[in-house]
Amino acid sequence: MNDSAIDFYFEYSSPYGYIASELIEALAERQGLRVNWHPILLGAVFKTTGGSPLIGQPLKGDYSKHDMARTARLHNLAMTWPAKFPVFPVPSCRATYWVMQTHPDKTAALVHGLYRGAWSTGRPVWEADTVLDIAAETGLDRDAATAGIADQAIKDQVKAATEAAIEKGVFGSPYFIYRGEPFWGVDHMRQLDRWIETGGW
Amino acid sequence: MNDSAIDFYFEYSSPYGYIASELIEALAERQGLRVNWHPILLGAVFKTTGGSPLIGQPLKGDYSKHDMARTARLHNLAMTWPAKFPVFPVPSCRATYWVMQTHPDKTAALVHGLYRGAWSTGRPVWEADTVLDIAAETGLDRDAATAGIADQAIKDQVKAATEAAIEKGVFGSPYFIYRGEPFWGVDHMRQLDRWIETGGW
Repeated sequence: MNDSAIDFYFEYSSPYGYIASELIEALAERQGLRVNWHPILLGAVFKTTGGSPLIGQPLKGDYSKHDMARTARLHNLAMTWPAKFPVFPVPSCRATYWVMQTHPDKTAALVHGLYRGAWSTGRPVWEADTVLDIAAETGLDRDAATAGIADQAIKDQVKAATEAAIEKGVFGSPYFIYRGEPFWGVDHMRQLDRWIETGGW
Repeated sequence: MNDSAIDFYFEYSSPYGYIASELIEALAERQGLRVNWHPILLGAVFKTTGGSPLIGQPLKGDYSKHDMARTARLHNLAMTWPAKFPVFPVPSCRATYWVMQTHPDKTAALVHGLYRGAWSTGRPVWEADTVLDIAAETGLDRDAATAGIADQAIKDQVKAATEAAIEKGVFGSPYFIYRGEPFWGVDHMRQLDRWIETGGW
């Protein structure tokens, strides 16, 4: 919990997480807040909650695919469906925790690079090589990033971060917490915004 | 599909359906549209989709209960949790189809009476007697309503309406269809509104 930040939980395979990642900074900036980026692994979350990816669910899956594209268009965001789905999120997740530790000022740029790679420009971000390419394009040292995502401490951190998120009640992506108040989903960013603005109701 | 109406699908045990029922008429009126009321039985839907009530789901259930109350407060709606949950929706559902056939002009009033009974004034609407009381309070003949909800043709209609909804892709409550375009959830009423306003994007 941080009074001057919005905690933003997301998973790289989540299309709604991608949409939220494109919208959260403007919201935070308008409110004079920082964004704390928390990539997590929903596979581990679903083991706890019994949840499953939206896309595989009868009726809801088809609706969601339609709705994601519609919601992206509403926000003028490019969106293409990845050649492989779900998008294996582990290399992206590790790279993000590595950059947060070593070059925190580049965190947002890397998140955007990885998310846009997966959901907008159609790059195979499920492969570590692509993740490292994107890190390099973000101005990070490719060799250092390579060592970073192989580092056991970083691997452990990804696991710990996911467990900590579950501990806080996070069950999906995107998920936001502001001063202990949770908001789930792109649609609920409006309530989040209003909650910050008004101090709650 | 009806170009001058919004099709509104809901289940009487759904708290978000209750909230939507309080908001949909104002939205429709602003757009010069009618509301077509479609109570359905989500139990049958979940048999098809493998879905389950939100409330029973780990993490998501707790969040949802918190969020429902918060969303109700945001819209200045009274909301209390029913003594029995899920709320057995069959008598309410049958009464609604009966009124749609016999006194269509009283449909909205009956829907509000039943939904408010379940979610605002804490009445045992899972009992047929309460449903009939509410019908009588709505200005309907109690004896005629009693015969109506026992009528096999009405029972069949409830079943057929739920099957028709599944056929159209409905998997939850509230769910809206306008000119073939589907919108799920209270939050998405904003997109529904904008879609009607702009003709889509």
